[in-house]
Formats: sequence, structure tokens, C-alpha cells
Amino acid sequence: MSVQQQVTHAASSARRASRTLASISAEQRADALRAMAQALRDHSAGIIAANANDMKAGSEAGLSAAMLDRLMLDDERVEKIAVALEEIADLPDPVGDVLAEWTIDNGLLIQRVSVPIGVIGIIYESRPNVTADAAGLCIKSGNACVLRGGSEAIHSNLAIAAVLQDAAEAAGLPAGCISIVPVTDRDAVGVMCRLPEYIDMIIPRGGEGLIRAVTENAQVPVLKHYRGMTQIYVDEAADRDRAVTLVHNAKVQRPGVCNAVENLYVHSGAPGVLNAIVSDLLAAGVEVRGCPRTVEMVDAEIVAATDEDFDTEYLDLILAVKVVDSLDEALEQIAEHTSGLAEAIITEDQEAADRFLREVDSAAVYHNASTRLTDGGVFGLGAEIGVSTDKIHARGPVGAAQLTIFKYVCRGDGQIRS
Amino acid sequence: MSVQQQVTHAASSARRASRTLASISAEQRADALRAMAQALRDHSAGIIAANANDMKAGSEAGLSAAMLDRLMLDDERVEKIAVALEEIADLPDPVGDVLAEWTIDNGLLIQRVSVPIGVIGIIYESRPNVTADAAGLCIKSGNACVLRGGSEAIHSNLAIAAVLQDAAEAAGLPAGCISIVPVTDRDAVGVMCRLPEYIDMIIPRGGEGLIRAVTENAQVPVLKHYRGMTQIYVDEAADRDRAVTLVHNAKVQRPGVCNAVENLYVHSGAPGVLNAIVSDLLAAGVEVRGCPRTVEMVDAEIVAATDEDFDTEYLDLILAVKVVDSLDEALEQIAEHTSGLAEAIITEDQEAADRFLREVDSAAVYHNASTRLTDGGVFGLGAEIGVSTDKIHARGPVGAAQLTIFKYVCRGDGQIRS
Repeated sequence: MSVQQQVTHAASSARRASRTLASISAEQRADALRAMAQALRDHSAGIIAANANDMKAGSEAGLSAAMLDRLMLDDERVEKIAVALEEIADLPDPVGDVLAEWTIDNGLLIQRVSVPIGVIGIIYESRPNVTADAAGLCIKSGNACVLRGGSEAIHSNLAIAAVLQDAAEAAGLPAGCISIVPVTDRDAVGVMCRLPEYIDMIIPRGGEGLIRAVTENAQVPVLKHYRGMTQIYVDEAADRDRAVTLVHNAKVQRPGVCNAVENLYVHSGAPGVLNAIVSDLLAAGVEVRGCPRTVEMVDAEIVAATDEDFDTEYLDLILAVKVVDSLDEALEQIAEHTSGLAEAIITEDQEAADRFLREVDSAAVYHNASTRLTDGGVFGLGAEIGVSTDKIHARGPVGAAQLTIFKYVCRGDGQIRS
Repeated sequence: MSVQQQVTHAASSARRASRTLASISAEQRADALRAMAQALRDHSAGIIAANANDMKAGSEAGLSAAMLDRLMLDDERVEKIAVALEEIADLPDPVGDVLAEWTIDNGLLIQRVSVPIGVIGIIYESRPNVTADAAGLCIKSGNACVLRGGSEAIHSNLAIAAVLQDAAEAAGLPAGCISIVPVTDRDAVGVMCRLPEYIDMIIPRGGEGLIRAVTENAQVPVLKHYRGMTQIYVDEAADRDRAVTLVHNAKVQRPGVCNAVENLYVHSGAPGVLNAIVSDLLAAGVEVRGCPRTVEMVDAEIVAATDEDFDTEYLDLILAVKVVDSLDEALEQIAEHTSGLAEAIITEDQEAADRFLREVDSAAVYHNASTRLTDGGVFGLGAEIGVSTDKIHARGPVGAAQLTIFKYVCRGDGQIRS
């Protein structure tokens, strides 16, 4: 079969499966997820053997030690993947919720009810655990999935997907509900993007290049985020110790992720707070790059920031700092540099906070809390398949509930249109 | 300016406007809509003069009488457009609703709040009233819009958009909030589809060809419906009179619209109901095209249906009828031929109804009511900008509330990630 045929086959199998998946009960889907977890444990040896092929090929291809570590599976990691599936099974079921109901004048009862979207395509890189996480969240939400992992993990992904699909079918779920694209050709992504009759939405996970390629080619909606230019504004009325703690947490606790802060704005009327924050960060090993006024106002010696620094996602212990003269200036700067994921204001002035929370247009906006809290688990949404900085369908952490849409269920006794 | 530049200019103006629109109050947006309505009345003469240019060009280009009638504006029609804007102003405001709120373990209050999407692109054909309706629904929901109407209505559309934008600005709304593409080149649509940095979502309204072209080219999500293959299943346990009334309404009351029934399935155990429905429809001038069993079971003489009939949206007084032996067979047929808009079951058997409502995957599913009720106004959602058979973001009638997304507003007192 050609690449086109193989991808189309996977996608059309998923479409067929999605028709029956919709009528399977919440209990049966949760039971299937538990059976899938157990099957991973039972077939751990086979999965690790398949992974060894990927590790060997990766070493030969000269993958970095970090890349090889991300790729590697052992008993402990397979167990973690299984536990993650069980946690998904335990989440509240997102399908069949009555989101709203009302009766119209002619007596017709209308309910807006949550239903699965249908078929979700997931395009991802390296880590083989994504295969199970993505399949688990799709099954939880009653969706079939088409998985397309990276070439470096192909043996691991095929092994995991086969174990999961077999266990799902044994638990009464339809064939094809966990479909995987069995080829590693680059063309496969392009084909997958152009099958609107089989795939309802695509979620790409990986580098910005991959995500842009998917978005430019897709004929179905793409739920995505490119990067996290997370920003914090420290207001004139900020509490000093609170500001130090929150900025420290947002930059230092885990700098390599999208909700870690990259740009800091400090009100010119708060030089003491600015100095306290900068000394704390320097002590923690952060390279502080300041605008000219920051350099001037700060007692310590710091690096001068370039314009480019305020548009760079470092994912590292580096922070760009700018002094502003007002909330208005901060809002302007934030709008100019935001990636739309998470932004925070630190202030004891409730009015300033309310304005910030209203006017900043990001998936999550914070008053006096760390941007690092932007996470499906922390938010109580459960496991997440990714994060969305898009402005349709779902925004922020994307969990099982965000993989549903609604239908209108209308119960009548003869109502007609007049 | 090139077409590329003109479209980009309109879209970037709308993007700039959307930043300030978000911070304008519900009252101010509603007042602006009322001022826009009044401005249309005040400038009625100018709009009708511009429309005369389109009518003249249309006559010369040989547009049909029906097309010319759709294009034509007079005082009465301008008044109707103004009233429609006032009705939109009176709708409940969809922005700033707290959709959900909860407090997580560390005391952080999280609210999921509705916010505008940002910039909506609307691509449409002929009727100039769409210019005002679309702009009105976008302003109501706090969105800026980029309008791209058909070439045959360009003078009317430019005149209406200019009046609306001026009135909006006089009422304190930002410049560019109602942006219109001033050129009629076909290329303009392609350019508009590929500006993800300025446009968040595109809604195409018009023929299937236009919608497919937009979907294939767009780099942003497209909210759309191609056609309405609306279907009704009359169960063995259907009440005869009710079935006759509902099918009559669904086919005859207005056959030229997407929620009018095109395929009818009748249980083989209900020959009396089948005959009653068919005689009623024949009496109403409907051409009934039956499967072989229908032809056999019906007393009257009817046309034999081809396979193609069950995939044709007639938008006319023609109905394809098929006899089925079970609810299962009906569900299968419906899944095979549906366009995902509206489907109904007519039965007094609650269990069969529940199964139908659960398993049929369409925007609106009905028990004992007419599919013609699928409408934003009838549903109580207010005016609609269109209808969606897509399965992300919004489904069914798309009103002002469906032009919003949410953000997470998080109020803390120092919460960090541990």
C-alpha cells in the first residue's frame, strides 16, 4: 500500500469505530481503560523489546543522550504509563452531560448534551508514552483516534498501540478505535492533514516547525500552541515578599516549560520590589537581562536586554525585565509580546487586578499567583493531551472534557414550525 | 495597493480593533448597535443609491430575476435590516459570563469566563443584509469582523459597512471593528484564508463550492455547513396523525431550506402510517420517490427512487422514502446519508426514542417534533450568523454566544507550583 493508502486506511477505520464508540456506556469505556492499563503491564516485556529496536537505531543515528532518555522504556516507565491510564479511567465521564436545558414556547424540551467529537488525529514526536496518554484521553471522551508518532519511536509506538487496541477490543470497544499510522514517511503527516471526511480535529504536539507545517496543511481545525511567552507584571502596589516568591516560582521552579515566565514588567514606582526580585533571581542563578531603566535602577550588575530578548522563549534560567510607568504601558507590552497562554499581575490593588484580568487576552490570567499553575492537573481538569492557545473550541489545558462537543436533544409532542 | 495588501490591511485593522473591543462594556456595545441601526435609517437614501449601481450592473450581467430580487434594497428592506440590529442589541450579552468556577486545594479561585474570539472573517454571497447581520452579531459578541461579500453586491456592501463603521466609532467603538475587503477579486478569498495572525475563524456563507474552496485553503478554523440531508424515521410505534403532521411540516412548510426533510424511513410494520403520510404529501403536491418496497406497499402510484435519490438535497417538493425493518436499519441508513444537521424519530415508544436521540450524531436530534425547528430564533438563541455541522467549537445554530470562547481567570493570594 502507498503512504496515502495506509494513512487513509487508518483514518477510515477510526471513523467507522467512532460510530459505535458513541453508543458505548461510560462504565464500559472506563473498564476498557483499566483493561488497557493491565494489558500494558502484561505485555511489558514485548514493549521493552520493541523499544530496544528504537534505542539501537537512535544510538546509531547519533541521537543525543537527552533524546535517548526521552525515548527509553523500562518496567518502571511502562508501569507509569499504565497508572496514567487508570487515572484517566477514574476521571468523571465527560460524555452525556446536560450542559443546558430549556423549554421553548411550543413545549419542546431542548437539551444541549456533550458528545464525542468523533475522530481526533494526534501528531507527535519522540516520547512513546504519548501514544498511551493520547489514546486514553480519546477513549475516555468517546473519540476514536489516529496516532502518528515520530519515526525514532516507531517500534515502541506500534507495540503500545497494538496492545491497547487488542485490550480495547477484548473489552467490547470497536476495531479501529485506536488506529496508528504504521509508516514513518514525512508525507504521512501531509496526507493525515487532508482527510476531513475521516478526521474531525488534529492535535500536533512537538516543536514549532511541526506545528506550523500541520497548521498550514490542515483541512480540519488544529488545536495547538506554538510557544509560551509567559509574562508577569509587578504593579506599583505589589507586596514585595509576595512578588519575590511568585516571580521566583514562575522562573526557577521549572524553567523549561511553556508556563514559566519569560518577560517581567515592573512599575517604576516600585524600585525596592524590583531590586528584591532581581537579587533573589541572581542568587538562584538566573541571568537577568534588563532594559536601560532596569539596569539603572538595579543595584546589582546585570546584562542589558535587546529588543529581541522580549520576544524570545528561553525555556532556561534567563529573564527579560522592563520597567514601565503604568498599568496601561504594561498591558500594551503584554499584548505586543504575548503568546496567549498565561499572564499574571502581582498587586494589592484590586482595581488594577480586575482591569488586568479583564483586558489581558490569554488562556489563563492570574492575580497574585504563579503562571506555573497553568496545568490540567493543577486546575483539576485531569490529565491533558496538550495546551491550546487557540481561540476557538478550547483554550488552555486540553483534557478529556475539551475533546467533546455538544448536540441539541429535542423532546417534543408534535411541535411543528409555523 | 495589491489585493494581498488590501485584504491584509482590512484584517490587521480588525485585529487592532479587537484588542480594545474586549474592554468595552456590554451596554456600550448594545448602544453602538442601536446607533448603527439608526444610522442605516438616516443614510437609507445613500445606501439605496449605491444599491442601484449593483442592480444596474446585475441587469447588464444578466442576473436572474430571483438573484436581482435578493440583491435589491428599498426603504422597507433597509428598515428590516435596522430592526434586526436592534433585536441583536436586545439579546442577553454573551461576554463575561462565568461558565464555571471552582477553588483548588491551594485556595486559588479559578473562573472559566466567556470572552470574544477576536476577529471573525465572514465570506458571503449576494444578499447585502448579511453585511449588517454579521457585523451586528460580531459586535454583540465583542468580536471585530472582516467582511467579504460577493462582487454583485459590492456597492451596497461598501455603503452599509461604511455607515455601520462610522456609527460604531461615533459610539466609542474602535476604528476597524467592522472592516470590509474593498475589492471583488476572486484572489481576495484566498488571501483572507491565509492570515492566521489576524483572523481567528472564518464563517463562509453560500454555495457548497464557495465553502469547499474556503475550507481547502484556510489556515484557521472554518465554521460551516455544506448542505442539509435532513432525515426522519417513522417507527413501528408511531402515532399516525402525528406522523402525518410532522412529516408534512418538515417537507412542505418551506422545502427550500437545509432543515427540510429529504429522506424518510418508515418501519415495515406500519403500512397504514406510510400510506397516510404518502397520500397527504401527494395531495400537497410532493413528488414521492419510493424504494421498491415502498412502491409495493403504497396504494397510490409513486415514482421509483434511485440510490442517488437518498443522497440528494432537493430543496424542493420531492421526498425519497425507504421502508426499513428495524430501528437498527434506520440508524444505519441515517448514519450513511446524514449531513449531520437534523434528524427526527416519530414514535410513542420511549425506549426507541431514547436510543435514537443517543445514537444519531447530528447537531439536533428530535423526538416527535419537526426538523424545521432547527433555528437560532426558534431555539431561543437569537439571531444566527449561520449553522454549523462541524464538530468542534459550535454545532447547530451559530448565534452571538457561539462567537465566544472562554479564558480562565485565576484569583490567588500567593499560590505557587510545588
